[in-house]
Amino acid sequence: MYSAAMSTQERLIESTRELLWERGYVGTSPKAILERAGAGQGSMYHHFKGKPDLALAAIRRTAEELLASAEAVLDSPGTPYERIAAYLRRERDVLRGCPVGRLTMDPDVMADPDLRAPVDATLASIRARIAEIVELGKEQGQFASTLDAGEIASAVVATVQGGYVLARASGSPDAFDAGVRGLLALLAPPRR
Amino acid sequence: MYSAAMSTQERLIESTRELLWERGYVGTSPKAILERAGAGQGSMYHHFKGKPDLALAAIRRTAEELLASAEAVLDSPGTPYERIAAYLRRERDVLRGCPVGRLTMDPDVMADPDLRAPVDATLASIRARIAEIVELGKEQGQFASTLDAGEIASAVVATVQGGYVLARASGSPDAFDAGVRGLLALLAPPRR
Repeated sequence: MYSAAMSTQERLIESTRELLWERGYVGTSPKAILERAGAGQGSMYHHFKGKPDLALAAIRRTAEELLASAEAVLDSPGTPYERIAAYLRRERDVLRGCPVGRLTMDPDVMADPDLRAPVDATLASIRARIAEIVELGKEQGQFASTLDAGEIASAVVATVQGGYVLARASGSPDAFDAGVRGLLALLAPPRR
Repeated sequence: MYSAAMSTQERLIESTRELLWERGYVGTSPKAILERAGAGQGSMYHHFKGKPDLALAAIRRTAEELLASAEAVLDSPGTPYERIAAYLRRERDVLRGCPVGRLTMDPDVMADPDLRAPVDATLASIRARIAEIVELGKEQGQFASTLDAGEIASAVVATVQGGYVLARASGSPDAFDAGVRGLLALLAPPRR
C-alpha cells in the first residue's frame, strides 16, 4: 500500500501502473484499481473520466520513466559498443517483462490511438537514440560502414523485447541473458 | 464461422485458438468461445472440464503447428546462414503477433504449469534447432568459431519475438523487417 501522504490521484495512477504491468489492460478492472489504491469509486471519477483516462496517465508515466532510464544508460561514458552493451546488460526485472512492451499484446491498448501513442513514441525514441550511437560507431570505425544504423538499433531493441518473451516462457532470466550475449558477440568490434 | 462438418469439439478448440491469439487468456471468456463456436454451454462441459482444459488443447495445437512450420523452414535446403535467414524472413502475419509468444504476457497462462509447458517447449525446441544449425555453420567455417551457438540461437528467436513488439507498437511491419535485416547483416559470413 501507499503512504498516507500520497494523494488519492497519485495512488490511483500508481495502482494502475502496477496492475497494467502485472495483468495487462484487459485484465485490470476498475474494481481492482480502487481496491489497490484504497480509493472509492467517486474519487476515481472525480480525478479521471474512467478507466481509459486513468490508464493513459499511468501509461504515459511508465513510458516516460522507461525512456529516461534507457537514455541515462545509453548516454553513459564509453565507446559506442560499450554504451550499447550497457543498455543491453542493464539491470532488469526480466521475469516481470517490459512494462511498455507488454502493452503491445493488449488488444484494447493497441486499438486506442491515445493509449498506443506513448508506447510507440517510447520504443521509437530508444531505437532512434541507439541508431545515433551506431552511426557514431561507424564514423569511429568501430562498426562496419556497411551496417544500417536503424536496422541495428531495431535488432538491439527487438532482442531485449524478445528476451523477455523467452525468459518468461522458460521461467528463468537465462534465456534473456543468452540472447543479449549472442547479439553482443555479433556486434563486437573485430580484435586488432 | 466453421463448416457444418466440423465437430463441436473441433469448433470449440479452433474458436479458443483464435480468441487466445486476439484477446489473450485473461480477455477470453467462456461466453465468447461459445458464441464464436456456435456451441452451447453443455457441449463445452461435455468435451472439456472448463476454460483451462479447453485452453490447454488450443495452446497445444497452436504450439505444435508453430513448431512444425518453423522446423520446415529451418530444414529447407541451403547453407546454415541461408536456413537461418529463411526462418527470419519467413512470411508472418506480423501485426497479429506470435500466437505462442504472446501467451508469455498472459499472467494466468504463466502461473499454470500445464498451460506454460507447451509455450516453453516450443520456443526451446526452435532455439535448439537453430543452435544445431549455427554449430554446423561454425564447423563449415561460415560462422566465427568463437560464437556460442545457443546464444546466437537465443538472439535469433528474441529478434523475431521482439520484432512483433516493435511492429505492433508502431502499427507497421517495417520495424520487424528492420530488426531482422539488422541481425542478418551482423550474422552474414565475411565476403572473401
